[in-house]
Amino acid sequence: MISENGRPGTSVETRIAAYDRGELHDRYDRLATEEPLEIRLRAGGKQQTVAITMRTPGNDFELAAGFLFNEGVIGSLDEVQGITFCVDRDVDEEQRYNIVNVDLWGDALPRLDALDRHFLTTSSCGVCGKANIDALHARGLAPVAHGSHVDALMLAALPGRLHKAQRVFASTGGLHAAALFDARGELVAVREDVGRHNALDKLIGWAFMQKKIPLEQHVVMLSGRASYELVQKAISAGIPVLCAVSAPSSLAVDLARDFGVTLIGFLRDERFNVYAGAERLRTTGGAS
Amino acid sequence: MISENGRPGTSVETRIAAYDRGELHDRYDRLATEEPLEIRLRAGGKQQTVAITMRTPGNDFELAAGFLFNEGVIGSLDEVQGITFCVDRDVDEEQRYNIVNVDLWGDALPRLDALDRHFLTTSSCGVCGKANIDALHARGLAPVAHGSHVDALMLAALPGRLHKAQRVFASTGGLHAAALFDARGELVAVREDVGRHNALDKLIGWAFMQKKIPLEQHVVMLSGRASYELVQKAISAGIPVLCAVSAPSSLAVDLARDFGVTLIGFLRDERFNVYAGAERLRTTGGAS
Repeated sequence: MISENGRPGTSVETRIAAYDRGELHDRYDRLATEEPLEIRLRAGGKQQTVAITMRTPGNDFELAAGFLFNEGVIGSLDEVQGITFCVDRDVDEEQRYNIVNVDLWGDALPRLDALDRHFLTTSSCGVCGKANIDALHARGLAPVAHGSHVDALMLAALPGRLHKAQRVFASTGGLHAAALFDARGELVAVREDVGRHNALDKLIGWAFMQKKIPLEQHVVMLSGRASYELVQKAISAGIPVLCAVSAPSSLAVDLARDFGVTLIGFLRDERFNVYAGAERLRTTGGAS
Repeated sequence: MISENGRPGTSVETRIAAYDRGELHDRYDRLATEEPLEIRLRAGGKQQTVAITMRTPGNDFELAAGFLFNEGVIGSLDEVQGITFCVDRDVDEEQRYNIVNVDLWGDALPRLDALDRHFLTTSSCGVCGKANIDALHARGLAPVAHGSHVDALMLAALPGRLHKAQRVFASTGGLHAAALFDARGELVAVREDVGRHNALDKLIGWAFMQKKIPLEQHVVMLSGRASYELVQKAISAGIPVLCAVSAPSSLAVDLARDFGVTLIGFLRDERFNVYAGAERLRTTGGAS
């Protein structure tokens, strides 16, 4: 399901059968595109594949940059010489857009064991959530700055604003979104993907390439759940308030509390739950 | 957030602030537990970490077995000597339940490049969805057997049955489910996890350990979306009908069509869409 110019689109049309009240009817439907993306790092004449992720095509440079930044492989745009799609003529046309080369200044590839750092163990052979969190401290991630207070009423209005802005979701129902809002609740950017992680990597990658990190005066909203890894990415980017439409996990809450992130869940119908960092919120009504 | 006996539970209680109509109220909420699980393979005196996945504790042996089976690392229960939690006394008590050792008969560890096989490239340096699918054929995965016809009316009733069976989801709202139904639509098993992949790995791992694979006369239902990797797991287990509450991706549909899987999406409110393999369905009304 590749669009005509050989470059995969964000969604594709397909023929389906729709079942309703005992009958099947032929019709057309749109699907969110899912294709692998290979992220390659190049420096000093050397090259290494860093990750292959299943993603929705679009904003691929941001995805690569955001992934590498969030994993601690690169720290600033000044390290990046350029980001390009593969131009190797030996590679089939349609595959060239599934390979992103990130060229770094400098003579050597960065150490990629950073990618496994959050799985560092605290003892001879153990892994546990607390060890993951400790490893993030060891990697040098800092607690998020407190910044300004955030108006609870403004947060309650975000789902409606995100919904209006989601283009592909409306047509396929198959994409996750990550949206960046400023302190007044104005939408700054939104990125979508079949993968929740990718949507947030794209959004943070956009900010990274705009040199807007840390995003100290911003709120990020996710269309799905909040897991440990999504909170970790928010911390990387210095995001003080992370909101999700659905539930957070236990480790997401532990991590948010440890790094001073305000973590909001079940943000819908103008209600929400605050799982961490409630001190940043300001309510107009009588706060408890 | 570890339960008192040192072994992580499926969900944990935590204190939150709930926002509603201008006010924050303190209350308790339950969170789905998320903890890392390290899967280790051991054979002939050698040991290797195969994967570390963020998962909800519970059914961890099934998760390990299902993961290894679905990735093609092990093919049958006869290869498995035993599955145990880590008993190393050097490992902290709470971490021992986050490490599963899978002991194999035989003198050597299996080749683990199988884990990367679905990313095999068809040319010098390319990746694309079609190459992924070709690689699954190359790995020896066979199309799913046609088996019996499936009653559309029965499929429409599955969400209600799954909903009744989901224990943790009801209390936390944070878990994905994968449910196995027999040909008459009776629930056989259900597994839950913060990760969609894990829920299906656990379910298939259960069937693997019960020697019930291939699941030729069964239907699997997923609480979320259907991605490429979930369809791949269904094919591994020989599941002819895979249903999802939400949308499939483009590559999930391509893969299902290629391997003869009936792929159902948006299964809710007694309606659904058929994205692949409609020939298995039988309707009582006038079929098109």
